[in-house]
Amino acid sequence: MNHKGFTLWLTGMSGAGKSTISDQIMARFRESGAKVELLDGDIVRTNLSQGLGFSREDRDTNIRRIGFVADLLSRNGVIVVVAAISPYRATREEVKGKIVNFLEVFVDCPIEVLAQRDVKGLYKRALAGEVGNFTGISDPYEPPLSPDVTVRSDRETVEESVGRVWSELERRGWIESA
Amino acid sequence: MNHKGFTLWLTGMSGAGKSTISDQIMARFRESGAKVELLDGDIVRTNLSQGLGFSREDRDTNIRRIGFVADLLSRNGVIVVVAAISPYRATREEVKGKIVNFLEVFVDCPIEVLAQRDVKGLYKRALAGEVGNFTGISDPYEPPLSPDVTVRSDRETVEESVGRVWSELERRGWIESA
Repeated sequence: MNHKGFTLWLTGMSGAGKSTISDQIMARFRESGAKVELLDGDIVRTNLSQGLGFSREDRDTNIRRIGFVADLLSRNGVIVVVAAISPYRATREEVKGKIVNFLEVFVDCPIEVLAQRDVKGLYKRALAGEVGNFTGISDPYEPPLSPDVTVRSDRETVEESVGRVWSELERRGWIESA
Repeated sequence: MNHKGFTLWLTGMSGAGKSTISDQIMARFRESGAKVELLDGDIVRTNLSQGLGFSREDRDTNIRRIGFVADLLSRNGVIVVVAAISPYRATREEVKGKIVNFLEVFVDCPIEVLAQRDVKGLYKRALAGEVGNFTGISDPYEPPLSPDVTVRSDRETVEESVGRVWSELERRGWIESA
């Protein structure tokens, strides 16, 4: 597959489906023989941001570091998939302004559904006041005002979400399926 | 110019000539139309390692982060030039072990010459005990035991040093001059 370098940035609350979608889309990129790298929360916390906490300042530092690395890669022709809560709009915009080909994907899901799913039991604990700095409960999540793509994990399948992201990438000429 | 992805890692004490050599070699790569990125002390401290100090632990964390980013880039076909004191042998070896194409360049210069040059006045202050954690004076510098290339900035010109690095890259088939 021919492709440009770009950054696909998935933002959304914990449990909204960022990892599920990024895993599927990574698989599809790899099958296509694309140069692609995933920067998700775990990878980044381990390799770039160990020691940072969840204050606004630390979260912003974390996001800026991801942005720095994503820019280095994507300006050299690599596809970068970022899956990070990235709760603050201004910080996302700052990163977006530095990366030439940037697609913001809002992984949206109503908080009631997230609290119901609660795969890791985190919403229950956060709602009980046992977890501080929890995005969407005790910390803000500022949804994108004009995301490039919005996917609704409570209303569509992962395949549908991935398909819509893929179509947008084709429409922009950033990927060219064989 | 055809080239592979690789990491050119310049290690050496403050003032030994890492930046001078890396600037020259970056210019030569860019003229050749190569995909190349520089990760030097300033870039890294600003974008990846703000808040880290000069303890062994913090220096090691800094070097590991550079290594992480250098690996992401070079495994995707990009040339990465790193200019970092990187004083600890074990940490350099650890990074080297993770990056497929890695060339360690030891920028060597006797400490007496460095103290004489003392471009930034740092050696004078360090020798007077006014600067703590200063590599080569109050902190160790562990020279590579078997560097891939050694350049001696007190005995050869920058052009000679760059030329020897370049030849080694050609010999390995990592670059192919037109």
